[in-house]
Amino acid sequence: MDTLSRLEQTVAARRSADPSSSYVAQLNHRGLPVMARKLGEEAVETITAALAGSREELVGEAADVLFHLIVLLGAKEIPLAEVLAELDRREGISGLDEKASRAE
Amino acid sequence: MDTLSRLEQTVAARRSADPSSSYVAQLNHRGLPVMARKLGEEAVETITAALAGSREELVGEAADVLFHLIVLLGAKEIPLAEVLAELDRREGISGLDEKASRAE
Amino acid sequence: MDTLSRLEQTVAARRSADPSSSYVAQLNHRGLPVMARKLGEEAVETITAALAGSREELVGEAADVLFHLIVLLGAKEIPLAEVLAELDRREGISGLDEKASRAE
Amino acid sequence: MDTLSRLEQTVAARRSADPSSSYVAQLNHRGLPVMARKLGEEAVETITAALAGSREELVGEAADVLFHLIVLLGAKEIPLAEVLAELDRREGISGLDEKASRAE
Repeated sequence: MDTLSRLEQTVAARRSADPSSSYVAQLNHRGLPVMARKLGEEAVETITAALAGSREELVGEAADVLFHLIVLLGAKEIPLAEVLAELDRREGISGLDEKASRAE
Repeated sequence: MDTLSRLEQTVAARRSADPSSSYVAQLNHRGLPVMARKLGEEAVETITAALAGSREELVGEAADVLFHLIVLLGAKEIPLAEVLAELDRREGISGLDEKASRAE
Repeated sequence: MDTLSRLEQTVAARRSADPSSSYVAQLNHRGLPVMARKLGEEAVETITAALAGSREELVGEAADVLFHLIVLLGAKEIPLAEVLAELDRREGISGLDEKASRAE
Repeated sequence: MDTLSRLEQTVAARRSADPSSSYVAQLNHRGLPVMARKLGEEAVETITAALAGSREELVGEAADVLFHLIVLLGAKEIPLAEVLAELDRREGISGLDEKASRAE
């Protein structure tokens, strides 16, 4: 599961590379609206793959979503660890919520 | 970075719980189009947070995207590891690509 | 405001044309998931244009949304008039709602 | 087909109404990112309705897309007529393109 941290480091390293040799550098060069748009487009493709595509397509589109999410977070200087910490925090809360609802 | 595997396990465990006590069970009960829609809506909120929101909003929306992506993959019985393997595979390819483009 | 009816007729006429000579025929040939995806992508581009683009970009992206919505409705054999009738129906309801809320 | 012009006028008239009595006023009060987000969400719902919903759902979601597109354009002070003029302009161009491709 170290893939995402490694990907995050690679994305950070390439951000300021020559846009002609790196897709990540190209996206950063084109700016935040383009990076945001890419995430949106990959999410749309994930939806259509989930509802009307093959398993293989869905795997590919989900990978695209993760990749472009990491690129966008990187451009905003938000470490992935901060997003994961938010998920941990919620899981704690929802664990308590579920116990509470079971107790009713 | 173990957060996502743990989240994946929690999501799998709750999938067939009572919809009244679990949001994950509720989503699975409502069906694939609802889970796909949720992912799309969170991606849209991530875009608007990235372009016009606070850092805190973006962290929260990115967490929502990861959560609903894992819920959707779970419903299609696709392990997150398969998506991460696809990212690993591409990184290998693009590493070679970048070397190739640098060599030109 | 007759533009949309005329566009709807053009789209209907081209649907079964040769995919090599018509974009509409090409989209129909590629199938519903592609037409749905296109609508989603144009909506994403409209969002980013509204939040971070020029007025001219927003006009162009809004035109793309209308075009791809008409293509999608055509592929599902739903006349645009049916969608407009739904908007008329709601406006009647919301007119009453607003009167009701003003009366409170 | 006068529905959209009438809707555009209604939306313009309500924009500065009391947010407690009008949904349009409420959206404008909450700001552009919320209006953009709404358009995106309705587009996502249109996609899932087209791929996995009923005809009735698709009609309703398409109406939502048109409504929220008009709200967003209104907030940016772009008349719908400008978007329709862009569609007219393209249809002229693509008519010529199609003739050109048929001539090949």
